[in-house]
Amino acid sequence: MTEPIGDGGDQVEVAHHGYISDKQQYLRRLRRIEGQARGLSRMIEEEKYCIDILTQVSALTRALQAVAMGLLDDHLEHCVMDAARVGGDEAEAKLKEASEAIGRLVRS
Amino acid sequence: MTEPIGDGGDQVEVAHHGYISDKQQYLRRLRRIEGQARGLSRMIEEEKYCIDILTQVSALTRALQAVAMGLLDDHLEHCVMDAARVGGDEAEAKLKEASEAIGRLVRS
Amino acid sequence: MTEPIGDGGDQVEVAHHGYISDKQQYLRRLRRIEGQARGLSRMIEEEKYCIDILTQVSALTRALQAVAMGLLDDHLEHCVMDAARVGGDEAEAKLKEASEAIGRLVRS
Amino acid sequence: MTEPIGDGGDQVEVAHHGYISDKQQYLRRLRRIEGQARGLSRMIEEEKYCIDILTQVSALTRALQAVAMGLLDDHLEHCVMDAARVGGDEAEAKLKEASEAIGRLVRS
Repeated sequence: MTEPIGDGGDQVEVAHHGYISDKQQYLRRLRRIEGQARGLSRMIEEEKYCIDILTQVSALTRALQAVAMGLLDDHLEHCVMDAARVGGDEAEAKLKEASEAIGRLVRS
Repeated sequence: MTEPIGDGGDQVEVAHHGYISDKQQYLRRLRRIEGQARGLSRMIEEEKYCIDILTQVSALTRALQAVAMGLLDDHLEHCVMDAARVGGDEAEAKLKEASEAIGRLVRS
Repeated sequence: MTEPIGDGGDQVEVAHHGYISDKQQYLRRLRRIEGQARGLSRMIEEEKYCIDILTQVSALTRALQAVAMGLLDDHLEHCVMDAARVGGDEAEAKLKEASEAIGRLVRS
Repeated sequence: MTEPIGDGGDQVEVAHHGYISDKQQYLRRLRRIEGQARGLSRMIEEEKYCIDILTQVSALTRALQAVAMGLLDDHLEHCVMDAARVGGDEAEAKLKEASEAIGRLVRS
């Protein structure tokens, strides 16, 4: 499952986390999220209207959920599917772990 | 919507936004949230395990919701309550606006 | 705050819960929700496809949230606003209680 | 996709929907949920205090989410895992479908 990149070394474990293909896209989205968080601070600093701040908090929450859903899809598609093919305890453990992560997303 | 108090000056916009008393606390919490967003970028950058990233996304979402609930409480306590005492269309409008913000929080 | 209706008696407390005007509408919506829950049982009984059942669960959850938002609006509009006009501890207590209910809706 | 069990008959479609082992448990939980919905109607009928009704709505929503998480786990464990072992378009389609169902749960 591990695909060493470059000369390997301590990066050996790098490549098998499924989101690698979209890494730049995730980093862009997270930079935007960071900017939104900074924007919230500025709105509080400037004492903008509460309701407008709440609207921005909802937008930020939705942006985060979209990132989470993307990461989850990548994880199911790569890591969980790979484990499914291997089967046994590994598959079961991966599934249990994914299910708990989904549960946290649903409740948060 | 701005209600100047006293002789105003740079406090002109200040007084009717209920969260002023806790401004520093909100700014601290938002700085922490910004740091959490930066931490997510770092985790993606270093290609940490998806499930660990998802756990951090859930934690960040909960931190944001706690800020939102705090802002909403402040808003209801000050802005909506003040409008309630005045009554009439203003009270109704404030309530409708708060209700829509709550709806966005519930669904996000 | 209590407005006795009819000859009062054990109905004395009836009228001050703000949703009275829409009572029939809420009952209709809840009957539909009950029917949706019964439909879920039937789908399980007949072993329908999981994903189709999950779609119905999401629809039922949204229907419940819509009822909750309606009840909350009514509560804010009547009970909390009335308390706001009275002011003091009563207003504060009503607001705290409403805020906790909103928090439960946001997290559930 | 259909794996007839026993002599088939009208059970032909039975075996590939993963929750069969827990069918009675799901039916019990859904009967309880139906009862909770009926209880909500009764509370509205008797004009109970809004906040108490909202508390029951939150409890019902959580019960529904727990059923949804159970069904999703079963679905991932059986249907998606089986598809993963087969691989190809089927696996991809199952995963996309599951991901969309998760997205609806997260947002609802």
